[in-house]
Amino acid sequence: MTQTPDDPTAERADAARNRARLMEAAAGLVAERGAEHVTMHEVAQAAGVGKGTLFRRFGDRTGLLVALLNDAEAEFQEAYTWGPPPLGPGAAASDRLTAFGSALLERITDDADLGAALARQVPLERRHASAVGRAFQRHVESLLQEAGVEGDHEMLAYAVLTFTNFETVDYLRNECQVTTARLQSTWADLVRLLTG
Amino acid sequence: MTQTPDDPTAERADAARNRARLMEAAAGLVAERGAEHVTMHEVAQAAGVGKGTLFRRFGDRTGLLVALLNDAEAEFQEAYTWGPPPLGPGAAASDRLTAFGSALLERITDDADLGAALARQVPLERRHASAVGRAFQRHVESLLQEAGVEGDHEMLAYAVLTFTNFETVDYLRNECQVTTARLQSTWADLVRLLTG
Repeated sequence: MTQTPDDPTAERADAARNRARLMEAAAGLVAERGAEHVTMHEVAQAAGVGKGTLFRRFGDRTGLLVALLNDAEAEFQEAYTWGPPPLGPGAAASDRLTAFGSALLERITDDADLGAALARQVPLERRHASAVGRAFQRHVESLLQEAGVEGDHEMLAYAVLTFTNFETVDYLRNECQVTTARLQSTWADLVRLLTG
Repeated sequence: MTQTPDDPTAERADAARNRARLMEAAAGLVAERGAEHVTMHEVAQAAGVGKGTLFRRFGDRTGLLVALLNDAEAEFQEAYTWGPPPLGPGAAASDRLTAFGSALLERITDDADLGAALARQVPLERRHASAVGRAFQRHVESLLQEAGVEGDHEMLAYAVLTFTNFETVDYLRNECQVTTARLQSTWADLVRLLTG
């Protein structure tokens, strides 16, 4: 089927293809030299577009990193939403919470994890407000509710998730020599105490 | 009693006087134009010393801010260590914990609070490692222990205190319109759930 240039379906398909090409170029550069070293100039060059196109599409460098982060997190989101228990459905809410924090802390402390490397480049407030940040928040909130925890679930979810912030985790690992296992066992303590 | 110049007591007294003079000059400038606008150059000028003296004494601008912070926090530390209950001794550990977080969140969300204004200028890892950060940590840790909470008290103290980080609190207040009262009631929820 041929589509005329003013067909909105064709326009959307074009836009999606362009976006995919920009994301692919950016992902390639991130893989090659690390998220912290990639500039908008290089991404534009690699994708064969002007820098203006890149800024119009993503707002700023952080916006591009957030878009890459949302893509990189799709697999983890799939695992905790639909995957096998205890991370996915089928286990008790408290066990799912423990498994979620444990997996998250494992990833945060893994230097090879792409999602963690990308998120580390995004300031806390943009991370909180990203699709990934909001999905983590809603997931923990709904498990706290399901576990029958009494209190303000939305805020309690923020409160416990702050323990998994890079700022906190990196400080505890680098300055206090706290191991990943101890971070995970603290998360398990928190969940056990909160869900009683 | 007259002291000779090589008397170590006199030297220590001199050093203390000099330090007090630098701190006074810095505190005056902070009061006048806000912690975020004070430079080492201005403090040196106001105290009538070279910038080198200032850097030798405090390491860097953050070091000077941490010294001012430690002084500014003396009153609050006195209140939660020796003051009347429920903040000070004489109340149940869980009530003291609730009162501590409530007071801390009240101060953090008060734009006129000097300690909060100073601490906001100090990066998270330096804040954690400061005398004030360590005192908060030990206080919460010992109350969790006293309340009979089972788990890794040192790490649980870090975990709950991260909820009072400026980064988190400012995000929740500014981007999510969360009130101080709701932050305080979330802290109370946390304490109630943790101390069972």
